[in-house]
Amino acid sequence: MKIRFDETNLLAPMVGEAHGISASEYRSQLRRGPDVVRAFRKLVDRGEVGFPTLPYQKGVLKQIQTFARKVRGSFDSICLLGIGGSALGAWALDCALRGPHPLQKPFSKAHPRLVILDNVDPALVGAALETMDPKSTLVLAITKQGTTAETLASLLVVRDWMGRRASRQTVAVTTPGRGDLYALAVREKWPVFAIPENVGGRFSVLSAVGLLPAALMGLDVARLLRGAARMTEICWETDAGDNPALRAALLHHLVWVEKKKTIHVAFPYSNRLWGTAFWFRQLWAESLGKEKTRKGEIVQIGQTPVAALGVTDQHSQVQLYIEGPNDKVFTFWAVEKQPWEGRIPKARLGLDAFDYLAGRKLAELLEAERLSTAATLAEAGRPNCTFTLERLDEEHLGAFLQMLEFETAFMAELLDVNAFDQPGVEAGKRFTYGLMGRPGFEDYRERFEHYLRRRQKAV
Amino acid sequence: MKIRFDETNLLAPMVGEAHGISASEYRSQLRRGPDVVRAFRKLVDRGEVGFPTLPYQKGVLKQIQTFARKVRGSFDSICLLGIGGSALGAWALDCALRGPHPLQKPFSKAHPRLVILDNVDPALVGAALETMDPKSTLVLAITKQGTTAETLASLLVVRDWMGRRASRQTVAVTTPGRGDLYALAVREKWPVFAIPENVGGRFSVLSAVGLLPAALMGLDVARLLRGAARMTEICWETDAGDNPALRAALLHHLVWVEKKKTIHVAFPYSNRLWGTAFWFRQLWAESLGKEKTRKGEIVQIGQTPVAALGVTDQHSQVQLYIEGPNDKVFTFWAVEKQPWEGRIPKARLGLDAFDYLAGRKLAELLEAERLSTAATLAEAGRPNCTFTLERLDEEHLGAFLQMLEFETAFMAELLDVNAFDQPGVEAGKRFTYGLMGRPGFEDYRERFEHYLRRRQKAV
Repeated sequence: MKIRFDETNLLAPMVGEAHGISASEYRSQLRRGPDVVRAFRKLVDRGEVGFPTLPYQKGVLKQIQTFARKVRGSFDSICLLGIGGSALGAWALDCALRGPHPLQKPFSKAHPRLVILDNVDPALVGAALETMDPKSTLVLAITKQGTTAETLASLLVVRDWMGRRASRQTVAVTTPGRGDLYALAVREKWPVFAIPENVGGRFSVLSAVGLLPAALMGLDVARLLRGAARMTEICWETDAGDNPALRAALLHHLVWVEKKKTIHVAFPYSNRLWGTAFWFRQLWAESLGKEKTRKGEIVQIGQTPVAALGVTDQHSQVQLYIEGPNDKVFTFWAVEKQPWEGRIPKARLGLDAFDYLAGRKLAELLEAERLSTAATLAEAGRPNCTFTLERLDEEHLGAFLQMLEFETAFMAELLDVNAFDQPGVEAGKRFTYGLMGRPGFEDYRERFEHYLRRRQKAV
Repeated sequence: MKIRFDETNLLAPMVGEAHGISASEYRSQLRRGPDVVRAFRKLVDRGEVGFPTLPYQKGVLKQIQTFARKVRGSFDSICLLGIGGSALGAWALDCALRGPHPLQKPFSKAHPRLVILDNVDPALVGAALETMDPKSTLVLAITKQGTTAETLASLLVVRDWMGRRASRQTVAVTTPGRGDLYALAVREKWPVFAIPENVGGRFSVLSAVGLLPAALMGLDVARLLRGAARMTEICWETDAGDNPALRAALLHHLVWVEKKKTIHVAFPYSNRLWGTAFWFRQLWAESLGKEKTRKGEIVQIGQTPVAALGVTDQHSQVQLYIEGPNDKVFTFWAVEKQPWEGRIPKARLGLDAFDYLAGRKLAELLEAERLSTAATLAEAGRPNCTFTLERLDEEHLGAFLQMLEFETAFMAELLDVNAFDQPGVEAGKRFTYGLMGRPGFEDYRERFEHYLRRRQKAV
């Protein structure tokens, strides 16, 4: 397993003093590394944060593998009901390891597809019900608290559509003993897989939340965990030179806070990493977008993550990236070895715009374009850096996801914010409960009506 | 056709003076409307900008309909080779009018699927070749200049895979008489559909670039154009009160420039509008992200567009949106009428988190969540506004796309930038040509090597 971090294009000699890191800034920032690791280690040792321990949960792995083996061959569709962290990890795994939709192999009971219902848009749910067959569908309902409105609403609709099969073909992934999904699962005798108390949704891909769908899709979950375990050891290194998660966090922190790069572009040159980019977008936004520091100081901090796809978005976003405001830092994600490189035929057509490509490979062109974009950004004074994965398999992906979680946790230490809560989404949820008439939320209905009266007066 | 723009939550009484538009700012900004429309009208009347005339090209419509009728029933896959503006419009149409991948109906010759190869990632191209059958695949190669490296490289690979069928099953969409795609098309006797000289890629969805794939998918392209034509009339209204594109441009301009909202979140509450959000992301970024004004003044201006999906991203991005820096303006895209509303069964389970949902509809929940998010953003002082489409059909989509193009063009007038060029992407292209050994680009190879030497010294 090999994942490299290359920070050269973040440095002042490449992008200038105003936007790049000087030699003295670099040295003094890297000296903060050991304290950052030790501070985060305390949270983990006290049991407050659980994701670093997930790669070592042998019992969970066994339980998941046993269940997947038992149902293998019975279902052609795994219908995942979940939203946010309950869905994005499974999408990242599916997209990276089985290829981007809609170009995966045709689905069958030997090769079940993953149908993710992570929205209550009736157009999405309706389309899913039209293309699935209740006889060959296994439903996974995933919500940590067991109360998420969107997931439970979809579950009620899908359960009705399944008819009597629902009781035999539904699995719950939730917190045992808490919430109404758990209560229903017990009543209906659904299998239940636990989400550990100290693992939040966006850090849960290596718990049953991501591993169960992965195993049901036939992925090698043991290798996912092995890669993540190896990376976990690397991420506990206190020397930033040996620890890509730590070095990336320290340098991104400098570029964000000192060089005012308020937008973070995650820029995979790989369609298979597109799902991972969306998974990362939640991880970075929800963990680091905070009103207050841990001491309660009001800061309204947060770097806006943007997912861009190479080379595709060179023809969509790069004009802005090169010529627009210098308010971004770019992190390329590259994959070194491709199983198929896309050989372009050797025959020449006698046409300039075609002939220089003859005999080359699509993989070479992809690589040349990434290098060219990095160079062009650097020449325009735009700081950028690169993670390179040797290949895209279970081991590297497990390691990469775990590394990005560590990077996020380290960044939270540097900013002194709590990476593991999300107080900002509560108000909206309560408004929704109020509007939907949930008992106990009548106050929010009233507050919403007050807001509507303010709107009438505002125009 | 009914599309409304609601700006109430952009106003100071809703989000405060620091972040919202005051009554006097509103009045004086709206008075600029007529000048903006007249200035843009001049560009169109002089023939410099062509997109407003596209809805009226009866000849093109007929040519496309005739071709689509001729090949209907022969192909189960329409393989689109194109990147940026050559691909995003077709994706927007497919996603909005036939539903989001991978949940479309199974494909067949009666219901062909659209396979978009908008990247040279061999994993994408390889997966496409594995799932398509050369016998039943029609290839559309789309590039305005006829020289785009990615499109031509993919074409060479796909052409080789098609074998002798390539000559009968390929169509070119390009500028007649220019570029090597046109030369090859003439040599191979492929049908050619023209892209008008004064229509750039990101404004080309209502030319053959978008209409041809749409017609091949069985969409009603005449109705697309009818909606767009009706909207075009509305967009030429000089009174901003009657012109949603103009009012949106004027008010977004104030919020962007005066209230420093450097990020523009396009926030559809509809999986079917997700492709449109990515299409818009190119339109806004490439048209308005510019180093210089039209007078040559260096400004490095540009608002970073972000695509977010409601309700899904409430559980991913809204924590940042509510608590993070107040540097964003949000534009919700709502759809009023759903063909299927997703009735939730009436039976109660005796479990609180389920029972308030009993008998309600997914469409109601979707709407309640959108309203709640808008209210929560407003209460946190975050300016937001809403476009509402009465329904999602060809007529409304044609109108909506045209409206967003007018809004972008009006914004360019307000900023005094050229919305119709993209000089910032040229440098990267030349580096790529240099690295790929294209004759005539040896200087860029050398410049790249100089950059590599600088990198070695920088570390």
